[in-house]
Amino acid sequence: MHRLMSELFPICRSITGEGVRATLSHLQRHIPLEVREVESGTQVFDWTVPKEWNIQDAYIKNNKGDRIVDFKKSNLHVVSYSQPIHAKMTLNELKPHLFSLPDNPSWIPYRTSYYKESWGFCLTHQQLMELSDEEYEVCIDSTFENGHLTFAEYYLEGDIQQEILVSCHICHPSLCNDNLSGIALATFLAKTISLQPNRYSYRFLFIPGTIGSITWLALHENHVAKIKNGLVVTGVGDPGAVTYKKSRQGDSEIDRAFMHILKSSGKDHSTIDFFPYGYDERQYCSPGFNLPVGSFMRTPHGKYEEYHTSGDNLDFVQPQYLEESYNFCLQGLTLLDKNNTYLSQNSKCEPQLGKRGLYKAMGGDADGAKREMAMLWVLNLSDGHHSLLDIAERSCIPFEVVHEAAEVLRNHELLKEVNG
Amino acid sequence: MHRLMSELFPICRSITGEGVRATLSHLQRHIPLEVREVESGTQVFDWTVPKEWNIQDAYIKNNKGDRIVDFKKSNLHVVSYSQPIHAKMTLNELKPHLFSLPDNPSWIPYRTSYYKESWGFCLTHQQLMELSDEEYEVCIDSTFENGHLTFAEYYLEGDIQQEILVSCHICHPSLCNDNLSGIALATFLAKTISLQPNRYSYRFLFIPGTIGSITWLALHENHVAKIKNGLVVTGVGDPGAVTYKKSRQGDSEIDRAFMHILKSSGKDHSTIDFFPYGYDERQYCSPGFNLPVGSFMRTPHGKYEEYHTSGDNLDFVQPQYLEESYNFCLQGLTLLDKNNTYLSQNSKCEPQLGKRGLYKAMGGDADGAKREMAMLWVLNLSDGHHSLLDIAERSCIPFEVVHEAAEVLRNHELLKEVNG
Amino acid sequence: MHRLMSELFPICRSITGEGVRATLSHLQRHIPLEVREVESGTQVFDWTVPKEWNIQDAYIKNNKGDRIVDFKKSNLHVVSYSQPIHAKMTLNELKPHLFSLPDNPSWIPYRTSYYKESWGFCLTHQQLMELSDEEYEVCIDSTFENGHLTFAEYYLEGDIQQEILVSCHICHPSLCNDNLSGIALATFLAKTISLQPNRYSYRFLFIPGTIGSITWLALHENHVAKIKNGLVVTGVGDPGAVTYKKSRQGDSEIDRAFMHILKSSGKDHSTIDFFPYGYDERQYCSPGFNLPVGSFMRTPHGKYEEYHTSGDNLDFVQPQYLEESYNFCLQGLTLLDKNNTYLSQNSKCEPQLGKRGLYKAMGGDADGAKREMAMLWVLNLSDGHHSLLDIAERSCIPFEVVHEAAEVLRNHELLKEVNG
Repeated sequence: MHRLMSELFPICRSITGEGVRATLSHLQRHIPLEVREVESGTQVFDWTVPKEWNIQDAYIKNNKGDRIVDFKKSNLHVVSYSQPIHAKMTLNELKPHLFSLPDNPSWIPYRTSYYKESWGFCLTHQQLMELSDEEYEVCIDSTFENGHLTFAEYYLEGDIQQEILVSCHICHPSLCNDNLSGIALATFLAKTISLQPNRYSYRFLFIPGTIGSITWLALHENHVAKIKNGLVVTGVGDPGAVTYKKSRQGDSEIDRAFMHILKSSGKDHSTIDFFPYGYDERQYCSPGFNLPVGSFMRTPHGKYEEYHTSGDNLDFVQPQYLEESYNFCLQGLTLLDKNNTYLSQNSKCEPQLGKRGLYKAMGGDADGAKREMAMLWVLNLSDGHHSLLDIAERSCIPFEVVHEAAEVLRNHELLKEVNG
Repeated sequence: MHRLMSELFPICRSITGEGVRATLSHLQRHIPLEVREVESGTQVFDWTVPKEWNIQDAYIKNNKGDRIVDFKKSNLHVVSYSQPIHAKMTLNELKPHLFSLPDNPSWIPYRTSYYKESWGFCLTHQQLMELSDEEYEVCIDSTFENGHLTFAEYYLEGDIQQEILVSCHICHPSLCNDNLSGIALATFLAKTISLQPNRYSYRFLFIPGTIGSITWLALHENHVAKIKNGLVVTGVGDPGAVTYKKSRQGDSEIDRAFMHILKSSGKDHSTIDFFPYGYDERQYCSPGFNLPVGSFMRTPHGKYEEYHTSGDNLDFVQPQYLEESYNFCLQGLTLLDKNNTYLSQNSKCEPQLGKRGLYKAMGGDADGAKREMAMLWVLNLSDGHHSLLDIAERSCIPFEVVHEAAEVLRNHELLKEVNG
Repeated sequence: MHRLMSELFPICRSITGEGVRATLSHLQRHIPLEVREVESGTQVFDWTVPKEWNIQDAYIKNNKGDRIVDFKKSNLHVVSYSQPIHAKMTLNELKPHLFSLPDNPSWIPYRTSYYKESWGFCLTHQQLMELSDEEYEVCIDSTFENGHLTFAEYYLEGDIQQEILVSCHICHPSLCNDNLSGIALATFLAKTISLQPNRYSYRFLFIPGTIGSITWLALHENHVAKIKNGLVVTGVGDPGAVTYKKSRQGDSEIDRAFMHILKSSGKDHSTIDFFPYGYDERQYCSPGFNLPVGSFMRTPHGKYEEYHTSGDNLDFVQPQYLEESYNFCLQGLTLLDKNNTYLSQNSKCEPQLGKRGLYKAMGGDADGAKREMAMLWVLNLSDGHHSLLDIAERSCIPFEVVHEAAEVLRNHELLKEVNG
C-alpha cells in the first residue's frame, strides 16, 4: 500500500481534471476499475458539476527571474481551482494571494477555491518571510473548460444483491494520509475480497470528495436501497489510534460490527458519534438517504498538525499503520459477511450435544469449555431474532468464536439459516 | 420584584378571604388579572370549596392586660383557619394551642389547620419560655362564613391555541420565598411576555395552593388538553442553586427545555425527578390529567431552615436570586416558543451553502465555524422528526445557536416549518 | 433444613434409580409430594429417558484383599452411571479410570458419565499417591435396566390458575450445597406457602437435573403458558453472598422482584445476567419456551472450591445461610403474590386524605410522613399501568411499605384492583 501511495504521490489531483484520470488509470493496474465521466454543467441535486480544471505550470518569479515559488517542486504551491493569471505586481498586491503557516514555518499549506473565482499561492512561512519589496512575475497556467467529472467504480457480485459500499476520495494533490492512504487501503481491500466468495455484493467507489458522492448519489438515487452497509475510508496511515465514526443511524449493523471488532481487539481505539462534517459520509448520511455508512480512520481530520499541509507526506504515513487499518477493515467487513441469523432446530430445550460428540464426556480443557459455551449461547439465542453479532454482543464472546460454534452446529443440522 | 414582594408582605393571606383579594387587587396594577370567585360548598372533584375565613384581630393578654402575643405584629402568630375564641384560661389549658421552634428560638413558625376545626397560636420559643403560670385572655376574632374561593387568571393569546401554563400559589401570609417570590416572578414574566409576539398562548394562574388548582382543574376539565407545557413557580428568591423538578411524564418538552437551559448555562443547578409532593404540580400531574407541568424553584421546599417560619422574610429573599430565576424561566419559555420542527428542502445530500454565501470561502474564524457547524446539524437532522431542541441536544450546541442557524437557513428557503 | 439435609445426605442419588425414590419418599414426610415415573426409552424432545441405574456395592481391593477404595464409605467414590465391572488389573490398566484432585488432595471429586458407556472411581489424591504397582481387584456392582425416570411435583392451588414454579434438582449423591440445600429450601418453602392463602397457584418440582426438566417440559408442553414466574433454587447454603441470576427475558416480573428485594435488603448480594449454563433454567429458558424463570443461589456453581467434591458436605453448608436464603426466596415470592395493579378512584387531582383521617392534621412524625408519601405515590401512579412493584421501583420506597399504603387506600375505597 505504501508503494502504491508513493507512485500516486506526485500526481496533481483536484476534483476534476487529468490528475484524477491519471490516478484512476494507475489503479487499474491493480483492480479492474470502471471509469465514469459526467459532463460539466450537469445538475446533481442542489449542485452543478463544475468546469474541468487543469494546470500546466505556475510560479512566482522575483525580479532576477528566479522561480522562488514553483508548482513543479510541489503541486501544493497553487490554490486548487485557481483562475489563470500572468501579471507583474508588487509584494503588496501579491500578499492577499499568499498563504503560509506561521506556526509550522517549513510546511506548505493546502488550500482550495472550488466554488469561488480566485487565485492564490501557498508557500512555507520561511519563503514568505524572505520576500523583499520588489516586483514579481506571477503566473498560473490553468484552464477552466467544459469537460467532465471523473470517478470510478469496482463492483463485485456476491451471493445476494444487497451491497456493502466502500468509498474513498481521490481529489487531493500530494497529500498522503488525506486521500492516498484511503485509496491504497480500498484498492487492496478490493483485491482481497475479489479473490474470495462473498455473501454480499461489494461496490468500491473512488470519487472526488463532496461533488463526487453527490454526483454518484444523484445518478443512483433508486439504487441506494440495496446498500445495507457502507464505509468511508480515509486517513488510515498516521500513527494515531484507530477511530470508527458511526453512521447517522448510530446503531446500524456496520456500526455494531466495527464497535465489536475494535473492542474485542483489546487495542487502543475510539468510537465517535456521527456529526455532519468530515468526508463523504455527510452525503451518504444526509436525511433523505440516511444510509448505514460509517467511517474508518485513524486520527480524525483536522486533529493532526500535518493535516492539509506538506507535512502529510510519505514519511508521515507508515506501512505498519496502513496494515493495522487494513486488517481492521477486512475483519469488520468479514464479520458483516458472516453475520447470519439462524433458527435452532431444537428450540424447546437444548439438543443433546453429547450424542453428537459435541459435549465433554469426562474432563474437558479451557478452550473446549469456551467452544461449548459459545455453542450453548448460539443455540439459546438462535430464535430467528438474533444475528451472530447479537449473540457475540450479549455473550461477550468474540464474533469469530461465535461464528465457529455456529458452523459446527449448522454442520450437525442443529441450526438453519433464516432468510433475511 | 423585590419591591412588589415588600408591598405584598404585610397582607394576611390564607386559602380564602380578604387577604387573597387584596393581593390580587394589588397585582392588577401590574397586569390585567381577571379575578374569579367560586362559592363555598362547591364540589370540586373529591373536595369541597371551604367556608371563607377572615380575621380581624387576635392576641394573648397576660393578667396585666399586655398583649404578649399580638396578631397585629405578625400574622404568623395565628394558626391559619383558626376557629374564633375569646376566653380566659390557665397556662396549662393554653399550652396545647401554642406552637414554637425550640431549635430556632427567635423565629415564629407558620401553621395551618384548614380542614380540621381547631385554633392555635404560633410564637417564638423565647416568648413561650417567658410565659409564667398565670391566667391569660385569649382572643381570636375570626369568622367562618359562606363566601368564596378567590383566584385570578391572565390569558395572553398567541399565534396558536395551544397554551403554556404558569402557576403560582397565593395562600401564605407574611412568607417571602414561599409564595411571594413565585407571585412576583410570575407577574414580571407575564409583563414581559405580554410585550412580545408569541407562538404559544399563555395562561398565568394565581391560585391558593391545592384547593385552588383542584378548583381550576374541575372548572376547566375539558380545556386542559390545550396545555402543552406548564410550570409551577415558587421558592425562587433564596440563595440556593436553582432546581428544576420534572413533570410526571419525565421527558416532556418543558422537562427537556429546562434541562437544556440549565446545563448550557454552566451554572450550579440540579434537576430532580417528579415526586407527588410539593406544590400544585401534584394536581396538574395527577394520573387523570398527567399534564406536562414541571416546577421551577431554588432550594426545594422544606430543605431550608427558614421554610414556614418568620425567617422566610424580605432579607432571606434577595433581588439577584430573583433575577437569575426570572432569567432562567424566561429563557426556558422562550426556548419552547422557538422550538419548531423543520423539513430541509434539500434532504438528499447537503445543499450548496457556498453559492448562497453561507460557507467559508478561504479562511474562516472560530465563531464562523461554529455557526457553520450548527447549520450543518440543522440541515442533517431536519427530517421532520427532530425539533430544534432535539438538534441542540444531539449536537451539544446551545439552543440559541441552533435557532439562529435555523433562522438563517429558513431565510434562504432551505428549511420549511413542519406544522405540528 | 439442615437436619433434613443430614437425613438425605447418605443416600446415593443419580438421575434415575432407587436413590431418587428414597429421597422423594423421605420428603413426603414433610409435604404431600406426588411422585411420577416415566419409562426408560421415552423420547423427550431431542433426548431419550435413559435406563435406570442402580448400584449395590463397589470397591478396589489391593492384593492383600483390603478395600482401599470403598463405595460404602462414600458414594462419591464411583463415577455415577458407571458400567458394572469385576476384574483384576494392574495399576497401569486401572489408572485411566481413577480421578483425583491434586490441588485438594484430601477431597474426593464427583464425576458422572451419564451418556457415555464407561466406568471409573474417584478418590482422594492422597489415596491415589499411595497406590503401589500391584494387581487390584476392581468391582462395580451396578445394573442398567429398563426402568423409570422418577420425579415429584407438589401443586398448590391459589386464587388464580396462573402459576409460580419452584424447581430444584435431586440427582446428586452425597453433596450438600449442590442439590440438598435446594431440596431442603424448596421443601420448607412449600410447607410455609401451603399454610397461607395465595393469589398465585404454586408448583414445586423435585427433578433430576437436565433430563428431569426436559422430561417435565415435554410432558407439559401446553401447560407452560400458565407459568408466570419461576425460580430454580440451588446452592443456597454456602457462606457466600446471595446471587440472583436473571431469566433469559432479563426484565420479567420475578427478575425485578428479586432485584428489588435484594437491593432493599441492604445486604451484600449480586445480580447476574442470564447465561445458558448452570441448572435447569437452561431448559426453562430455551428459546422455544423462554419462560420467566430466574435462579436463586449463593456462590454460583463452579465458583467455590468445594463444588463437586466431598468438601461440599454438612459442614460447608450452615443453617444461618440456609435461613437467609429461605427468607429472601419467601420475600421474593410474597412480593409477586402481592404485586397487584390498581386504579385510583380519584384519578383527577388527589383525593382529600384529610377528611378520611389519612393525612397529618397538625404535626406528624417521620414514620407518618413516610406512610403518607407512600400513599401519595400509590395514588399518583395507580393509573392502571403501574403495579405496586413499578411504584416501589420509581419511588425508591420498599415494596412492603408501598403495599401497606395500598391496603389502607383500598380499605378506604380509594383504589380498585385492575383485573390482569
